[in-house]
Amino acid sequence: MTPRPAQPVDWPGEMRAAACFSFDVDAESAVLHQHPEAAQRMSVMSHQSYGPLVGVPRLLKMLDRHGVRATFFVPGWTARRHPDTVRAIADAGHEIAHHGYLHEPLTGADPSTEADYLDRGLDALESTAGVRPVGYRAPMWELTYNSPRLLADRGFLYDSSLMDADHPYELAVPGAQSLVEIPIQWALDDWEQYCYLPGISGSGLIESPRKALEIWTLEFEALRREGGCFVLTTHPFLTGRPSRAAALEELVERVSAAADTWVAPLIDIARHVRSLGLSPRTLTPPDPHM
Amino acid sequence: MTPRPAQPVDWPGEMRAAACFSFDVDAESAVLHQHPEAAQRMSVMSHQSYGPLVGVPRLLKMLDRHGVRATFFVPGWTARRHPDTVRAIADAGHEIAHHGYLHEPLTGADPSTEADYLDRGLDALESTAGVRPVGYRAPMWELTYNSPRLLADRGFLYDSSLMDADHPYELAVPGAQSLVEIPIQWALDDWEQYCYLPGISGSGLIESPRKALEIWTLEFEALRREGGCFVLTTHPFLTGRPSRAAALEELVERVSAAADTWVAPLIDIARHVRSLGLSPRTLTPPDPHM
Amino acid sequence: MTPRPAQPVDWPGEMRAAACFSFDVDAESAVLHQHPEAAQRMSVMSHQSYGPLVGVPRLLKMLDRHGVRATFFVPGWTARRHPDTVRAIADAGHEIAHHGYLHEPLTGADPSTEADYLDRGLDALESTAGVRPVGYRAPMWELTYNSPRLLADRGFLYDSSLMDADHPYELAVPGAQSLVEIPIQWALDDWEQYCYLPGISGSGLIESPRKALEIWTLEFEALRREGGCFVLTTHPFLTGRPSRAAALEELVERVSAAADTWVAPLIDIARHVRSLGLSPRTLTPPDPHM
Amino acid sequence: MTPRPAQPVDWPGEMRAAACFSFDVDAESAVLHQHPEAAQRMSVMSHQSYGPLVGVPRLLKMLDRHGVRATFFVPGWTARRHPDTVRAIADAGHEIAHHGYLHEPLTGADPSTEADYLDRGLDALESTAGVRPVGYRAPMWELTYNSPRLLADRGFLYDSSLMDADHPYELAVPGAQSLVEIPIQWALDDWEQYCYLPGISGSGLIESPRKALEIWTLEFEALRREGGCFVLTTHPFLTGRPSRAAALEELVERVSAAADTWVAPLIDIARHVRSLGLSPRTLTPPDPHM
Repeated sequence: MTPRPAQPVDWPGEMRAAACFSFDVDAESAVLHQHPEAAQRMSVMSHQSYGPLVGVPRLLKMLDRHGVRATFFVPGWTARRHPDTVRAIADAGHEIAHHGYLHEPLTGADPSTEADYLDRGLDALESTAGVRPVGYRAPMWELTYNSPRLLADRGFLYDSSLMDADHPYELAVPGAQSLVEIPIQWALDDWEQYCYLPGISGSGLIESPRKALEIWTLEFEALRREGGCFVLTTHPFLTGRPSRAAALEELVERVSAAADTWVAPLIDIARHVRSLGLSPRTLTPPDPHM
Repeated sequence: MTPRPAQPVDWPGEMRAAACFSFDVDAESAVLHQHPEAAQRMSVMSHQSYGPLVGVPRLLKMLDRHGVRATFFVPGWTARRHPDTVRAIADAGHEIAHHGYLHEPLTGADPSTEADYLDRGLDALESTAGVRPVGYRAPMWELTYNSPRLLADRGFLYDSSLMDADHPYELAVPGAQSLVEIPIQWALDDWEQYCYLPGISGSGLIESPRKALEIWTLEFEALRREGGCFVLTTHPFLTGRPSRAAALEELVERVSAAADTWVAPLIDIARHVRSLGLSPRTLTPPDPHM
Repeated sequence: MTPRPAQPVDWPGEMRAAACFSFDVDAESAVLHQHPEAAQRMSVMSHQSYGPLVGVPRLLKMLDRHGVRATFFVPGWTARRHPDTVRAIADAGHEIAHHGYLHEPLTGADPSTEADYLDRGLDALESTAGVRPVGYRAPMWELTYNSPRLLADRGFLYDSSLMDADHPYELAVPGAQSLVEIPIQWALDDWEQYCYLPGISGSGLIESPRKALEIWTLEFEALRREGGCFVLTTHPFLTGRPSRAAALEELVERVSAAADTWVAPLIDIARHVRSLGLSPRTLTPPDPHM
Repeated sequence: MTPRPAQPVDWPGEMRAAACFSFDVDAESAVLHQHPEAAQRMSVMSHQSYGPLVGVPRLLKMLDRHGVRATFFVPGWTARRHPDTVRAIADAGHEIAHHGYLHEPLTGADPSTEADYLDRGLDALESTAGVRPVGYRAPMWELTYNSPRLLADRGFLYDSSLMDADHPYELAVPGAQSLVEIPIQWALDDWEQYCYLPGISGSGLIESPRKALEIWTLEFEALRREGGCFVLTTHPFLTGRPSRAAALEELVERVSAAADTWVAPLIDIARHVRSLGLSPRTLTPPDPHM
């Protein structure tokens, strides 16, 4: 079956483009699933806990200064480890969405394992922050072809883990309600610019916040001209550092000042897309042997 | 046998240099040959299908705005997976050339395996887009010393996978008609600047379109002063992103504005070179033990 | 137990922020623990000995020009190999602190091994330079949860190896006096910008001193606005090179010119923090299986 | 034995600093010793042969435009493969120096193996270009503690592979005449900025010539202020590309315009240093177990 591209969508009122600032609050979980022994490495753990302890409060204040509501993807384990942080995000009026339990990459996971991650994540967000998320983002943006059905069965409205469009779309789910997909991309992520943990993650280089700001600003302006949906993903343990938060604030100012751009959390964007009654796209795995 | 350098060539009319914008439409194939299991990784596949679904249409419009005809190298598998994309390229008047079947690197391939890749690629381009290509580029720019004969036997006019000259030349093929070789180079490629797929490809860093534009512009201006042939290679799944396409458009404008530079698809450049009646160069594998 | 963030601290007098220039005088030791066979690699050893032989004298003169007192972390082995260098640092009025014996990363080390590294480092600093250090920094910033107790038992006042705050704090040590912790971060380090030793360390890229200066200046200015403590870590075998030392001197000038910023060695900062009578923070390893 | 630093040297006449542009003409040899099977990879070989075929002639013309005499380090194998290139270098009045036979890294090589590389390299330079070199640079700047004696026994005047000083010095050779050592450093090399050969070498990134020019210019200016010796190392297969050669030419212009800087081939610098009658430095391998 020949894949078909997503089509541009209409935005509310006079708006010509949309933008969301999203944050993946991985904290220690992003390290622990792959490296459980790192739980005993005090410096590594302190690097990760900077996110919920320092980064999130700083970013919440920054968002508040500009009246921007954002989306925070929180692994269930992180919610259990840092419940105050998660409640502070919710109390500030931001969206809390699902990001696995211990930030498990889904590569090669069977559906029952994947279902278990989803259910444990839901339980943790419910019990720690009283939140029932409607949005999902796969850890490492690593969705499987089983994920959409598992998400639909649990009543999720949207996912934000795919990369094949500049605009959101309805993603067909065989035998169930479709999901809104709000695409992301690697260049709109802070990990590649900032992350360095020897033996664990990173290229070994650390970039300047000015370079990150340049890439993200160029892509925002270009996506805006296309009428697309700009979704930036940053991590409080990285972008929560003072000079990086300041660079992000410059971008928040610029995007907020764009009168034709609707800045909203992903849940609002997903609800808008759902209201458009789009025809769902079907995505199937390709056959490498055809 | 001592290798001899290629010599500068004359360009048509008043022209003093040449330039071609070439695109490798790898799509999913660039991942699947090395990682067939990635066919089940929905996000990875969506990253690659952005090329034919979104990148190619955007780039076709951009080229049309500037009246530039380009060369698109399409693996046979990609043509079968995305036939509409390939037909749209052909319908817009661009050249479609051969880029293997499933983007197979030829390192260590024996001649019959290599022949099979070529024949399967030819069949796919013929049956999906009615195209019989005269140009070839080895996946990963990894030509073998067997490739020229296999290409000559199938009537190819040119190859574009070698790196030992600033100008095109005739490449001697023992026992057959020579091939026009139109050289490329790693610095005139977008992969090193933009590609990141964890566990699959990339250094881990992602560069700004401004940096890519700087490198390519500097090399264009310098090659132009040398009277050489500037061949840029970009990938729609990378450079098709809005801000990168905008950077490429800046370069297309600059190159098109250079009155002494002939902007043409590789097929036109190859035909011109063939018309010059150059004496073929012989390239033989060196002996590491001499 | 839910981790709690460190709180901002008051600085002496009119000061609103603090800054320390720290130097890790690894010399050959940073290579030899992981690669003892590199002792026979003359060029590799010469790369490392540039630090104590050329870098340290240059940096001492530079600090003297600006009247800045700094902190030098010296592995015990380095002190034995380069005793004149260590004495020159002490004679110039700078602080000498502990940095392991042969720059041993503590990942997976048991407490008795770790104690041995500490004791051998203390012996070496005592016998070569007559110094009893009160500050510690774990090689590779790799502290274990056992380290604080081992340091407290040996009368250390402070550690500088954790990353979970912008401000210093008292770190609780079960059964012993707390330690002052003065946090660091990967972006305020020169290794990621400059280090390249094929097969031993580095991403393979080498950055410009201007880029390093940009990152460090941006973070200094942002931390200053937060009232935090800026701790830069550089290595004389890297930053001791002329153009890098010149870039660092620009930063030293800028930081020294900030009238609201207290520039001091870490020992002075730690003593100030101790005088504040802060309530210690407890940090415990997380449970990946919760 | 405590290592002692090299001391600043006096330069001829009014000169306050020195500079040499050196070129490592590795060609195919830099790949073949580690990857002999790459002899069958036509594109890889073409990438390397760009150096002797195109890069060297371009660089010779550029040097001639500025009246600069340089030093070319040529592996013996390269001289046999590309004798015309080597003769053209010699005919243009530049120095040809020794760079191994097949660019063999000396890590772990025993003295007789290392002697064999030296003797085969001498034979090849003699028989192809009639040259008896007096200078040596270890491939990969990987000198062993045996190398100095082997060089001294063959009458070499100087080596340029160590990194522990900003100035040249006399290197003691037990039981033989000392060698002049003219130090180099990783930041004054083009490999880290430009080299990319998938699966063979490089970080995966390719930098802009402007960035390379910035790093080298900053270090030249800083070394000049120190009265040191600036030795840049570039590779014709990399820096011979048009825009990179243009960037190097900017640097050659700037260095040549520095009236207080003596621009000379390494042989002239070595002879000058020898004339100073310096006391040799002794370098011994450190003991990792002390």
